[in-house]
Amino acid sequence: MRCEIIAVGTELLLGQIVDTNSSWMGEHLALAGIDSHFQTKVGDNLERIVSCIRLGLERSDAVILCGGLGPTQDDITREAIAEVMGVPLVRDNEIGERIRALFASRGRKMTDNNLRQADVPEDATVIPQMPGTAPGLVCPVGDKVVYAVPGVPHEMREMLNGTVIPDLQKRAGLTAVIRSRVLLTWGHTESGLAEMLAGRIEALDAPGNPTLAFQASGIEGIKVRITAKAGSAEEAEAILADEEARVRAILGDVIFGVDNQTMESVVIDMLRDRGLSIGIAESLTGGLMGARITSVPGASDVFRGSIVSYASDVKFSLLGVPEGPVVTAEAAKAMAEGARKTLAADVALATTGVAGPAEQEGQPVGTVFIGLAMNDTSEAEQVKLPGDRQRIRQYAVISAFNLLRKRLMR
Amino acid sequence: MRCEIIAVGTELLLGQIVDTNSSWMGEHLALAGIDSHFQTKVGDNLERIVSCIRLGLERSDAVILCGGLGPTQDDITREAIAEVMGVPLVRDNEIGERIRALFASRGRKMTDNNLRQADVPEDATVIPQMPGTAPGLVCPVGDKVVYAVPGVPHEMREMLNGTVIPDLQKRAGLTAVIRSRVLLTWGHTESGLAEMLAGRIEALDAPGNPTLAFQASGIEGIKVRITAKAGSAEEAEAILADEEARVRAILGDVIFGVDNQTMESVVIDMLRDRGLSIGIAESLTGGLMGARITSVPGASDVFRGSIVSYASDVKFSLLGVPEGPVVTAEAAKAMAEGARKTLAADVALATTGVAGPAEQEGQPVGTVFIGLAMNDTSEAEQVKLPGDRQRIRQYAVISAFNLLRKRLMR
Repeated sequence: MRCEIIAVGTELLLGQIVDTNSSWMGEHLALAGIDSHFQTKVGDNLERIVSCIRLGLERSDAVILCGGLGPTQDDITREAIAEVMGVPLVRDNEIGERIRALFASRGRKMTDNNLRQADVPEDATVIPQMPGTAPGLVCPVGDKVVYAVPGVPHEMREMLNGTVIPDLQKRAGLTAVIRSRVLLTWGHTESGLAEMLAGRIEALDAPGNPTLAFQASGIEGIKVRITAKAGSAEEAEAILADEEARVRAILGDVIFGVDNQTMESVVIDMLRDRGLSIGIAESLTGGLMGARITSVPGASDVFRGSIVSYASDVKFSLLGVPEGPVVTAEAAKAMAEGARKTLAADVALATTGVAGPAEQEGQPVGTVFIGLAMNDTSEAEQVKLPGDRQRIRQYAVISAFNLLRKRLMR
Repeated sequence: MRCEIIAVGTELLLGQIVDTNSSWMGEHLALAGIDSHFQTKVGDNLERIVSCIRLGLERSDAVILCGGLGPTQDDITREAIAEVMGVPLVRDNEIGERIRALFASRGRKMTDNNLRQADVPEDATVIPQMPGTAPGLVCPVGDKVVYAVPGVPHEMREMLNGTVIPDLQKRAGLTAVIRSRVLLTWGHTESGLAEMLAGRIEALDAPGNPTLAFQASGIEGIKVRITAKAGSAEEAEAILADEEARVRAILGDVIFGVDNQTMESVVIDMLRDRGLSIGIAESLTGGLMGARITSVPGASDVFRGSIVSYASDVKFSLLGVPEGPVVTAEAAKAMAEGARKTLAADVALATTGVAGPAEQEGQPVGTVFIGLAMNDTSEAEQVKLPGDRQRIRQYAVISAFNLLRKRLMR
């Protein structure tokens, strides 16, 4: 089963909006066992949208159109599909009433334009929608099919997972359930992980179920995705659990989390479980450590605060770092000890180093020291980080949280 | 002149990487007066890449291929173009030597695969490249043209601006120079700005030179882009300068910066010009203010540090905030005063408020107080911010910097 994606909107061609919807859809189609060989962006032009749909139906079994379902004159996805189907648009009174009711409930005046969203190509099925006003469409074209979903990401996602993908799987005769789980790793390159897992990947290659795949995710480390196919969700989950255990036995504490966890959410959970509070002292990271930890709702359970001691004399006066060079293991330790005391925390992390663009205290760009204070002792670790200023800062943050994670696991 | 964009790479279809290159190219083609009606993503498959190029040459005058120029077996953009041109690939010895020299200079061993990057379709012209190893290509196909550029963003950008766009403009007989300038605004909605500028936009509508356009840019406010067309760069710049002055006369200090500036870079420049240092106290922003200010190289000229007082008692003990409720104007002022004193800074900013998900001290999510201490006085401003936890935190940061910007302008 091959399904193309067509993202509709002149603003996409002009680069005013980056088309993240197609990427998300491509990922989820692939996970559902459906190939997507072409993805196209086209502007709000009837003739060109129609030509893209026709081409998609020639090359593939199905087409998903995303966007152009709104109330304005620019929104012509409905018209384009009707033209390809060779049918008229028919106003769906039920949808019309719902749109009227929505406006009434919000106390807003509805212009007639909004009722265009109730126009549906004859013979199309409507995908019921939750909060928005524009319904999605399932439009048969011979033995092929065109879907239309809104460009609003959460509405698109809901319709794709709830209607489009199950319908595609049914059409493809795919009765298998496909599930996947992502193991998050930190500290190894993709080729390093591939080497560690080479034996396991080879052993899996024959039947191909489950499969293992690597995915770089920018500054957040490398993901290992396990995908399993089975007759039922329970069976698929059991395969995932078994494979996760095998991969964990090989990679050990290189794996820091699963699926939607993050390094900071994992560290917060570990601290909460142990009844420990954390304080932070930052230099080159400039506040990023505090920013990341507080991006997690509930961070206040464990997070006391952070002292961003950017100027050296702030390190001396507020954190009690001895006067002298500050890009050193000793300074990192002293910063952590100072943060633990000043913020009255059980545990403290500290970062000091050279983010660039210029070297500092004779240390090259990328030199970072991480300090950790806990149980009245402190330690420091030196790391050499690659990349530009922003990347070095981000890597320093995740490296520091990872050091604490490993320390807490001991 | 119509030019299509084809982004090559299976990882794009699978959603492992979001295709931001096409968006960037679309924007810059449009600014150069070149239409881009279709943008396609296709995987690393020879037949499908070839079909996309042929289709692009049918529908448009030119095609830009992005990606697939690397050294691995997956990288087959060169082969696909040669097939469309009906010519063989020829090894370019000069490029081969450069690749060898590059590896030698880095002390790394070169595998033969790397020399594939020296293979060029017969009759193609090579685009010289700066740091990377893969050269770009200009490939004539009849009276049309195919360009190939690497997927590495900075290499792609350099080749597009340096070679592809000038070549397209020459082919299109576009002798006009097009220049644009972006004015960055904060504090008004797009429709609010449109209303303020309605008279000016109407006055410009007849000749259409310069033009004004609005562009939302997420959390960073609304951009107003001025685009001018003229016979020379000097003339175009003069039109831009004139129009900028007119727009500034209407919008006033709603405009906080131009082009690549950011709210934090503007504030740093203002502080540096005035010889002032800054300290920060953060609560709901958790370190984001420090993180943003230190993302600018040279922040150390003015930035002393930040005290992230997330727990209330840290506000009391470290910043001298009077015990009691902390989501108040008084607490924001006290935090700013405390930060100014503790960090020995000339100026201090503070944020306290409710980022959610739950309300706090009876204050609804989105309630934020910004404190500002300067010249031995302090003030506080309350703002109501929309959105979820992350958005409220980001808006709070930029609102705080904006308050300081306006205070410094007085």
